[in-house]
Amino acid sequence: MVNRQTYREAMARFGAAVSVITTDGPGGRFGFTASAVCSVTDDPATLLVCVNRRNDSHQPLLTNAVLCVNTLAADQENLSNLFGGGSVDQDERFAAGHWHTLQTGAPVLDGAVVAFDCRISQVTEVATHTVVFAQVAALQHGASHDGLVYFARAYHTLRRP
Amino acid sequence: MVNRQTYREAMARFGAAVSVITTDGPGGRFGFTASAVCSVTDDPATLLVCVNRRNDSHQPLLTNAVLCVNTLAADQENLSNLFGGGSVDQDERFAAGHWHTLQTGAPVLDGAVVAFDCRISQVTEVATHTVVFAQVAALQHGASHDGLVYFARAYHTLRRP
Repeated sequence: MVNRQTYREAMARFGAAVSVITTDGPGGRFGFTASAVCSVTDDPATLLVCVNRRNDSHQPLLTNAVLCVNTLAADQENLSNLFGGGSVDQDERFAAGHWHTLQTGAPVLDGAVVAFDCRISQVTEVATHTVVFAQVAALQHGASHDGLVYFARAYHTLRRP
Repeated sequence: MVNRQTYREAMARFGAAVSVITTDGPGGRFGFTASAVCSVTDDPATLLVCVNRRNDSHQPLLTNAVLCVNTLAADQENLSNLFGGGSVDQDERFAAGHWHTLQTGAPVLDGAVVAFDCRISQVTEVATHTVVFAQVAALQHGASHDGLVYFARAYHTLRRP
């Protein structure tokens, strides 16, 4: 078994898109930055998000049973930092962007390179984290075509060919 | 609910590292290309891989209960194409790379930007796919520092800053 620090060093070599995961409903409006997101199946369209159980957004996400994966565009690094900062309160995070809703009521970010508006369909507990599976109810393609990835502890821009 | 084609168009805007997932043991030596891989927790170091149940590697992976996530370096696009090609047989795929083993016996690719040698710890079924959770038994950092991501239906190089 490898230790935590060694694993983190290795994962720094694994490039990943940066998304702000949002939710709203009876559990309140919350959002956080995540890179542990991936597609599961296209039938029915389903993705997953790994959420630390100590994350403030964890319980609201499960209570609301909806989420939006707002995949950040190249010019949205500031939102990644704000929503990734444990000490920044939720109102301050949301004040930094413009938001609307699609079908589920979860906040959808103007200018995201793509946004997946989802209903939670299934959860699995794995050690410290909950893996949340969510079916895509609606989609938004942003006007920006360039993506943002995190790799080797830095942001990189992906230019659309 | 969004349809399959619309969902695929949207996911094309979600950049992802490209890995070759390998396994070996009583179920045989198999490998395939995957971008649906992400970190779950660092305590204990655990990642996940989403595998279509129709994938030839699906049953061998579960039988062997070990896998290696070989995250490709910028100069390894050819391996992504070979291991992603449903019609290319397994011997031909493996012949295109050089391999060794670490702890579990799963094939580890020389030159991968990073390789996670894992034991399967848990699985969850989600529609057409099995989500395989795996604990990291050993790691390899490659000599190459530049990563490969797939975005907007093209390969992109991530240069280490």
